[in-house]
Amino acid sequence: MPALPTLGILGGGQLGRMTALAALRMGIEPHFLVPEKTGSTAGFAHVTIADWNDKEVLRRFALGCSAVTVESEWAPADVLESVLPAGVGLWPHPQTLRLIRDKAVQKDTLKKAGLPMPDYRVCTSKQALHGAATALGFPLMLKRRRGSYDGYGNHTCHTPADLDAGWGRLAQEDGIMAEAFVDFEAELSVIVARTPFGQTAVYPVFWTEQRAHRCYAVFVPSGLPAEVEAEANRIALGAVEAFNGVGVTAVEMFLTKGGRVLVNELAPRPHNTGHVTIEACHTSQFENHVRAVLGLPLGYPGLQVPAACMVNVLGKRKGHTHAEGLAEALRVPGVSVHVYGKRTVSPLRKMGHVTATSTTTTDARARAEQAVQMLNL
Amino acid sequence: MPALPTLGILGGGQLGRMTALAALRMGIEPHFLVPEKTGSTAGFAHVTIADWNDKEVLRRFALGCSAVTVESEWAPADVLESVLPAGVGLWPHPQTLRLIRDKAVQKDTLKKAGLPMPDYRVCTSKQALHGAATALGFPLMLKRRRGSYDGYGNHTCHTPADLDAGWGRLAQEDGIMAEAFVDFEAELSVIVARTPFGQTAVYPVFWTEQRAHRCYAVFVPSGLPAEVEAEANRIALGAVEAFNGVGVTAVEMFLTKGGRVLVNELAPRPHNTGHVTIEACHTSQFENHVRAVLGLPLGYPGLQVPAACMVNVLGKRKGHTHAEGLAEALRVPGVSVHVYGKRTVSPLRKMGHVTATSTTTTDARARAEQAVQMLNL
Repeated sequence: MPALPTLGILGGGQLGRMTALAALRMGIEPHFLVPEKTGSTAGFAHVTIADWNDKEVLRRFALGCSAVTVESEWAPADVLESVLPAGVGLWPHPQTLRLIRDKAVQKDTLKKAGLPMPDYRVCTSKQALHGAATALGFPLMLKRRRGSYDGYGNHTCHTPADLDAGWGRLAQEDGIMAEAFVDFEAELSVIVARTPFGQTAVYPVFWTEQRAHRCYAVFVPSGLPAEVEAEANRIALGAVEAFNGVGVTAVEMFLTKGGRVLVNELAPRPHNTGHVTIEACHTSQFENHVRAVLGLPLGYPGLQVPAACMVNVLGKRKGHTHAEGLAEALRVPGVSVHVYGKRTVSPLRKMGHVTATSTTTTDARARAEQAVQMLNL
Repeated sequence: MPALPTLGILGGGQLGRMTALAALRMGIEPHFLVPEKTGSTAGFAHVTIADWNDKEVLRRFALGCSAVTVESEWAPADVLESVLPAGVGLWPHPQTLRLIRDKAVQKDTLKKAGLPMPDYRVCTSKQALHGAATALGFPLMLKRRRGSYDGYGNHTCHTPADLDAGWGRLAQEDGIMAEAFVDFEAELSVIVARTPFGQTAVYPVFWTEQRAHRCYAVFVPSGLPAEVEAEANRIALGAVEAFNGVGVTAVEMFLTKGGRVLVNELAPRPHNTGHVTIEACHTSQFENHVRAVLGLPLGYPGLQVPAACMVNVLGKRKGHTHAEGLAEALRVPGVSVHVYGKRTVSPLRKMGHVTATSTTTTDARARAEQAVQMLNL
């Protein structure tokens, strides 16, 4: 008879923390492996701090787990795969991560699946990049192939001179990705959970608001026509199946001014845009991630409230974390305050988030923003 | 500037576990003090296993906490009070616990507050007990004054001979409590959260179903007329204020066949009947308990779903806990499965619970029971 399951998590930030909280509720014990101590995991018992590129470290860690998942596509899943003990799950599959990590490979995979997306070129030389600009026009988005997050690896070009600057900043040994600029109406996100057996749960469409290439706020319902939502859900599910995604995958999309939905990129893990699911949906993205990677049946992803808005709490200063404004934020009616336990703060660091539920997204936004403005963690 | 708060919890069962999960979400780190290792706290980092009646143990434990709370009215709050470091909160106040622990003192306190309740007598001799039976009639409920739970300290008398048997079983050095039998239509529970500053949050009325003196299921909404609900809420709030309760207090009540609401007893802590608040209400009893004992403003206790039902998962055998039926239970639509992480199971031990949300309590009950029947932890 199986004992209560244990879930290994490679990584120890807020995504791992919220995954761990969802796991504990179901009696599943989280085990973290992290290269260095983190505040987000300080409250949990099973935290291994070690060189997580070391095969023996990974093998021994996995031996204590029913399944292992990653908090980030950059975690050493490939190394673990090479020493994975029999009977231990490793999800998402390292091959899914390989297809996603390199944006050029990711785009090629989406294209092969026939999904609507912005036109792009993989350019292996500066000359090829100038050729791509001729084909795709300006403005042109340049993207680093591997290793970027929160917009750090992007460069918008308006002139041929910008191309050279962007190439200098972002090109890697195998070049750069150039993408036609999308004049979008909105950025959307759809979270999809999928088990190793192919069961899927597709969340409602989230309307996301970015500021300075970072997620600022998320709204649900999106307020979009049903056929646009259906198209976004169809594309998201198609994308996740194209990558054989297991666990939770976030599919970020553009809604063009012409009303088309184009897939932008995938994150093979719980995602900032999905934090709103904790209060807004019957089953949170974190719970469904846990269920999926352990091969358990998925929960219903539908809305359980009329409307919700999530706003990130970003660091405003540099130093030790404190609880300034926590009482004031909790005084705002209808909000749920999440604090990630990070011990130090720096400007724009993700320190927590606030979700407000209400009858309208407008009211939810007002409440969530009010609470966020109080917090100075 | 205050750092993120820490919350001390005396006790390490499921109530402490769910309180800790609510605390972590808000960035508040739980610290447990328990006399022996428990499975429910095995996933948490800060667990002190020591003689919790030792003043030095308690003092040192409290030094690391912003506030300390108890998981049970029997935890050594009095000892801690005598060595409490300056600036550390201890809630509920030990005086509240003293008023509640002895059922005779508890009843006297409720009576003094003028709250409607069954007639009772505190009997310090067998002779006095026979006198009480003459005054209150049969059937007569005898209750041990201190140290009972889940009906273990109760004895129902139908004849004078029963009185002697009951006295022999339950009387303590200061006697026994005799209470007029209430021919009730329903048992109700109202959870009240209250801060040290007197802010209160009163939850909706829960209809509870007991089997063999144990909580079997909880339903919300209660389906009772608004005036009965208002009366139950009024009585619950009055009771909590009479005891100067801080944190969460559960007030258990009878609804008589004649439609009157009578207060039965209080539990000065999160309560089994309040588990349904996790999914059914905007703010769970655990979150509001954490907020209250740390002196933070309370969250809205109202319903966020049309209907919900919570059913306990009780042990069916003796041995090590396992995950039998977890996948099958999770397959039931609309349920939330909670497993407490206890390492061993015994018949009727509380191992977890399932809450189903739905449009009606009838449907919620069917789903929750279906999931519970699958589970053989």
